[in-house]
Amino acid sequence: MKFRKDRLRSNLVECFSFLHISFDAGTEIVLYLKQFSDEMKRYSPDISNAEDSIRSRFKDVTESNGINASFSITKNKMWISPDQNLKASVARNRLVSLLVASDNIEFWNNDNACGHSQSTEKYNKLVKTIPFTSDFFFRQLFDTDTSTYTYLLADLNTKEAVIIDPVLEQAKRDAQLVKELGLTLKYALNTHMHADHVTGTGYLKRLLPGTQSVIAKFSGAKADKHLDDNEIVQFGRHKIEAICTPGHTNGCMSFIVHEQGLVFTGDALLIRGCGRTDFQEGSAEKLYSSIHDRIYKLPNNFQVYPAHDYKGQLASTIIEEKTYNPRLTKDKPTFINIMNNLNLAKPRYIDKAIPANRECGLYDIPPDA
Amino acid sequence: MKFRKDRLRSNLVECFSFLHISFDAGTEIVLYLKQFSDEMKRYSPDISNAEDSIRSRFKDVTESNGINASFSITKNKMWISPDQNLKASVARNRLVSLLVASDNIEFWNNDNACGHSQSTEKYNKLVKTIPFTSDFFFRQLFDTDTSTYTYLLADLNTKEAVIIDPVLEQAKRDAQLVKELGLTLKYALNTHMHADHVTGTGYLKRLLPGTQSVIAKFSGAKADKHLDDNEIVQFGRHKIEAICTPGHTNGCMSFIVHEQGLVFTGDALLIRGCGRTDFQEGSAEKLYSSIHDRIYKLPNNFQVYPAHDYKGQLASTIIEEKTYNPRLTKDKPTFINIMNNLNLAKPRYIDKAIPANRECGLYDIPPDA
Repeated sequence: MKFRKDRLRSNLVECFSFLHISFDAGTEIVLYLKQFSDEMKRYSPDISNAEDSIRSRFKDVTESNGINASFSITKNKMWISPDQNLKASVARNRLVSLLVASDNIEFWNNDNACGHSQSTEKYNKLVKTIPFTSDFFFRQLFDTDTSTYTYLLADLNTKEAVIIDPVLEQAKRDAQLVKELGLTLKYALNTHMHADHVTGTGYLKRLLPGTQSVIAKFSGAKADKHLDDNEIVQFGRHKIEAICTPGHTNGCMSFIVHEQGLVFTGDALLIRGCGRTDFQEGSAEKLYSSIHDRIYKLPNNFQVYPAHDYKGQLASTIIEEKTYNPRLTKDKPTFINIMNNLNLAKPRYIDKAIPANRECGLYDIPPDA
Repeated sequence: MKFRKDRLRSNLVECFSFLHISFDAGTEIVLYLKQFSDEMKRYSPDISNAEDSIRSRFKDVTESNGINASFSITKNKMWISPDQNLKASVARNRLVSLLVASDNIEFWNNDNACGHSQSTEKYNKLVKTIPFTSDFFFRQLFDTDTSTYTYLLADLNTKEAVIIDPVLEQAKRDAQLVKELGLTLKYALNTHMHADHVTGTGYLKRLLPGTQSVIAKFSGAKADKHLDDNEIVQFGRHKIEAICTPGHTNGCMSFIVHEQGLVFTGDALLIRGCGRTDFQEGSAEKLYSSIHDRIYKLPNNFQVYPAHDYKGQLASTIIEEKTYNPRLTKDKPTFINIMNNLNLAKPRYIDKAIPANRECGLYDIPPDA
């Protein structure tokens, strides 16, 4: 009994400790602490202590973030009514995704399409997903020659879009799609300075004037916008958090869309693999830390979309990689040993790609744009 | 003014005429007729007639389906309270997807994760999406050699899964993924008797005992289960409707998941293209009808997932193909003329694939399974 209570409480605390909360003015969030209270009832008819603990914890988090909100708990519901003068922020949505990710909370968010209200008790971390909200557009694209994935994301209301890791040879295809969908490309983001293909960023800037090139500050590449760790890139109401995940290169970043439960890992974490670490400031040790200390800290059900795949796998999840990635399930010394003995061939396009990508794709692009 | 009213009303009627409704016992559905009433108000302060028309139409549909439900309309909300003795069914969720798909209704469904509550007035048919429900798993997979897409779908509560168009050479990869995710493969479905690759169905039946092979009745191929037009394939609470879409072959089917707004079009409709019609009972005329009379009748925002793509495009939508498909935007005679003059090479694997696929992949599969 005690064990159960502690486990549940510590999960909640862990969940809340990630949290930097604020709310849309005038909205109300209702948590359905369904599984929590059901489990508690099985072991104790008195769940008020546990509920007090949640309320108290939640109060701590909101107050430490300068938020005034009133709380009430009735049975398995917790109502949170933030003050009217609070500004909207990504944090409310982050709360949503964190709560979805928690195995011990089911929740219902009054004004968010990704709310859960499953009545089943069955859970499986491996496959539980976070549905996209109805105003979020997502399209994955592929370059067969270099096995590169490109991602187009958009806000369906403002029509602002971003593209992640475009490829030079596919820039026309991508620009046409952006136009056909009636989108405005705001940013062309690069997860890092690629060695295996030339970025489509520069060409897209010509094909879709107004597009800004974006890359990590630590990449050493030219761009219109340089990203620091934890910097936010916004398109419409949607937000990408860029986090530093060096190891493949020093300037590698992963891009997180918290609300939709998505992470674009570039060449850091691949599906059942990872990026090589034997050139361009590569460091197996750094990569191990980036994946374990940054990417794996995301909720288990976040979807993982890498920059490449060579086996026809299009997506994964954090828990799948934590559980089944043949390299990353090893301890750090074993991982470093594996990475230092891969004996891979030099990337085909490295001599062309790196100089071009250092200019973020403005180098040697077709003149007919 | 009249035009507006009529247009809006006829859209609603069209929406409801698709409907075979029932509801979960004790649940309540609330339609927010937001855009509807907003538009009406712009042209007439009196929207009661229009609302009466909706209520009346809705009453017709529910009663003709043997459902007793009470209705109330206040301002722009319509509350529907079905009787307690009604059984749950996919139809409620179908209602949800149809309403999401309708351009003139925004709705909020009390207990369904795919509810919409956007406050914006801006709409763009091209990109408005239907979010997957939180208990629906979707994973697209690719075979590089034949550019074939395979799809794994599952019910996250029961863990029942289906796979669509598996490829022999990838069957081990697919079986491993099914196992890793803790799923039970119920059906391996084929959109048609492929000429370009050998189906992975037979091999998957060996690797994952209990899997049943499924193909169209009209395919002339052996299988555990043969599908008729409009037949339903169920996995957990989720349902696929199989519809006949001949033209590439006589036995071609498309698979629809209404609730999630998905259609798997096999080799009928491809992204900005379509399947060839010059062998295996191919008929450009039939294909034109299949696409226009069946597939294009789906809501505009349904996502299109074909069996192949050769340009790195992973998905499309009905409206995109209606608007931009270079072949299908032509009239029927022009389309037939295009298709009869493609002068394509014979498929590489046809001599191996068709005999194998006639046995639904049980022919010549690796002995090591």
